[in-house]
Amino acid sequence: MTDLHEMSLAAREAFYTLSVSSDEARNQALLMMADSLSSRADAIFEQNALDLRDAEAASLAAPLLSRLKFDQVKLDQVIQGLKSLCALPDPLGKTTLSTELMPGLNLYRVVCPIGVVGVIFESRPDALVQIASLCIKSGNAVLLKGGSEALRTNRILAECIQDALRRAGFPCTAVQLLTSREEVSAMLKEDELIDLIIPRGSNAFVRYIMDNSRIPVLGHADGLCHVYIHQDADPDMAVRVVVDSKTQNVSVCNAMETLLIHEGIASLLLPRLKEKLEAAGVRLLGDEKVQALISCEPASEADWSTEYLDYILSIRVVSSLEEAIAHINRYGSHHTDCIVTEDEAAAASFLNHVDSAGVYWNVSTRFADGFVYGFGAEVGIATGKIHARGPMGLEGLTTYKYKLIGSGQTMSDVKRGLLHYTHRPLNASDPTSGERKQEA
Amino acid sequence: MTDLHEMSLAAREAFYTLSVSSDEARNQALLMMADSLSSRADAIFEQNALDLRDAEAASLAAPLLSRLKFDQVKLDQVIQGLKSLCALPDPLGKTTLSTELMPGLNLYRVVCPIGVVGVIFESRPDALVQIASLCIKSGNAVLLKGGSEALRTNRILAECIQDALRRAGFPCTAVQLLTSREEVSAMLKEDELIDLIIPRGSNAFVRYIMDNSRIPVLGHADGLCHVYIHQDADPDMAVRVVVDSKTQNVSVCNAMETLLIHEGIASLLLPRLKEKLEAAGVRLLGDEKVQALISCEPASEADWSTEYLDYILSIRVVSSLEEAIAHINRYGSHHTDCIVTEDEAAAASFLNHVDSAGVYWNVSTRFADGFVYGFGAEVGIATGKIHARGPMGLEGLTTYKYKLIGSGQTMSDVKRGLLHYTHRPLNASDPTSGERKQEA
Repeated sequence: MTDLHEMSLAAREAFYTLSVSSDEARNQALLMMADSLSSRADAIFEQNALDLRDAEAASLAAPLLSRLKFDQVKLDQVIQGLKSLCALPDPLGKTTLSTELMPGLNLYRVVCPIGVVGVIFESRPDALVQIASLCIKSGNAVLLKGGSEALRTNRILAECIQDALRRAGFPCTAVQLLTSREEVSAMLKEDELIDLIIPRGSNAFVRYIMDNSRIPVLGHADGLCHVYIHQDADPDMAVRVVVDSKTQNVSVCNAMETLLIHEGIASLLLPRLKEKLEAAGVRLLGDEKVQALISCEPASEADWSTEYLDYILSIRVVSSLEEAIAHINRYGSHHTDCIVTEDEAAAASFLNHVDSAGVYWNVSTRFADGFVYGFGAEVGIATGKIHARGPMGLEGLTTYKYKLIGSGQTMSDVKRGLLHYTHRPLNASDPTSGERKQEA
Repeated sequence: MTDLHEMSLAAREAFYTLSVSSDEARNQALLMMADSLSSRADAIFEQNALDLRDAEAASLAAPLLSRLKFDQVKLDQVIQGLKSLCALPDPLGKTTLSTELMPGLNLYRVVCPIGVVGVIFESRPDALVQIASLCIKSGNAVLLKGGSEALRTNRILAECIQDALRRAGFPCTAVQLLTSREEVSAMLKEDELIDLIIPRGSNAFVRYIMDNSRIPVLGHADGLCHVYIHQDADPDMAVRVVVDSKTQNVSVCNAMETLLIHEGIASLLLPRLKEKLEAAGVRLLGDEKVQALISCEPASEADWSTEYLDYILSIRVVSSLEEAIAHINRYGSHHTDCIVTEDEAAAASFLNHVDSAGVYWNVSTRFADGFVYGFGAEVGIATGKIHARGPMGLEGLTTYKYKLIGSGQTMSDVKRGLLHYTHRPLNASDPTSGERKQEA
């Protein structure tokens, strides 16, 4: 096993270099990554073929195999992603608050990178490039652990990225690959050197990480999304949104798991929904009121808390908007929840009362995604309330520092009444951030 | 012991009410708190006298007794604080991002409260009112645990606050007092209902909380602040900043613990600093280079990592700006660090390279405080990088949600090429936030 403490120390040093680099220098590194990946395409495909061969031999399920595959199509997407990322504005250096505390004493709040981030991701090797490039663009160093079935592919991708970093004049330790579970356990102990862990994986896995580290964790533990059809919903729109939210891709976190429907429209809509959903292969589970209107299996109490990630949908009839909101706040996972209604007041009430990262009105839950939101890409979707919430792009990978620039002021003089606070907004930029451009 | 699960559920319900209330209604509650505290002043002083009597009998140290005291002066301060808080703008409801994803599909990012916050604070009973009022102003419910020596005072203060909430039409469970350690342990387990824990206390205590809860924790583990005197520093200013940072109040987290001084100015300044600091009662510990210039005790490796919170200062001579920055990033606690210099480039380099919440140029470290920064007050000072950093005021008690407002769009239509992203910035406000004003 590699020494995780040494790796973390090296990542920290790399972060110090990145944190004061110019956007141009970081973009240059991204372009070199694209270049490096292109020029070693054949070697990458070769390593991926070996991973795929082993995965097939181990009888991995077809969807997992397709996620594991890294071919010319994936490479083109990854390179396009790197170029799009270059085009995004510099996420660092912006002054988000400036105040004159007293004459000659000015406070500036300036956006800066978080530091060292640990990301544990699933089988898709293209995620490695995406995450590494988001971290570099935002000035962070990253320790990455991918799925073991993609080990050979991840290794060569990480090599390409490290080559590119070196050529761009950055420490290659800004992006480092972990290859074993033991290394992940060791990483969780480095709370003095690592600032944030982003686990992408199962609910149980995210909880395991939270239970075993002092390092702050941002991840979504579950994606238990709801669609609620209000009594005045446009029936065609309701069917469209429900079918898309459930079936467009059942295995993702923003797919619907529970449908709530107002009793005033249930008898009209449930038969149509049953027809469409069953035609798409969805198994329906309903409460007693649902079962009185259509034939389906009974839903148990546990179903309201179950993220199926499958062609299964639990359905409940509610007698009011308030009951729908209460159900979602009680059983939901605070990910993404939608109301279908023509009533603006009902929509506003739903959007304001439902305590979720995404609250939708008349649109499929499948739109909960960093690329869709215009963030370029995402490192994950956060369902907690702290730091980033919802799809987490470049902004989620930044923090800020307070720069206070004075002329020898002391607290003793304040207490003696010799100095007085003015707290005057300045609308000025940090005068010391220009230095960034001269470095790196 | 009270049932913490029931308390947390009640807090959650109170949060739902607060989260959709108007700023006027929340300000009204703050004014009623002021009213309630004024009208029961004598009863409060009586309970505080009992706490003080027991504390004196238990031979509590004088500074602790003075923190525990809640007299007319403290009451006036607390009431002034409530009124100032009312005057601050509504921290909720602001749209911080608005994008047209495609025609007829608009995304809004809107500021909202975090939810239920657990705060564990030290002996000062006035902190109870400060924290509770910051939480109410920002739409959060709060569970509070104060020092056991202030139990009677905290109980009556919490009663006053709950009365005020009731009279303002809010659930009184928006502010609840915990009274035992067992309740704190039980609170740490309620990760489904509590969104954030803010522990204010010792380093060991904060780590204990982190090790025993899945709930995100924001707190500062240490305040190991540095002042670095660069070779070209103005000598008078350097002495002023150093003496104030060390001695204006030694027992607070923003007091200086380590002084770094450039070798080019050490022989000139150290004798002057020794004279001033020793006159103020400070014990000096120095590395070998310091001991060669002034007589003082030797500093050990452990001293660079020690937060004295006392009249003790460790001093080290460095041979470059880079060495000072490396020392601070290695041994510091990322709280507040200052450079004294006349050289703008050196200052910029220090401010950009030092990885701390507060980076200061020519000003005492004692200015690191939410009130000083103009935030009205603070619930704590965060030294981590996640969510809030530095003094944490109202803004640190908020998060955001994404509201997506469409007209029946589906991901299937996007994938079929029937819908296309425009990602056009809107500069618009969330059209559904008006609803807030009509409620509460």
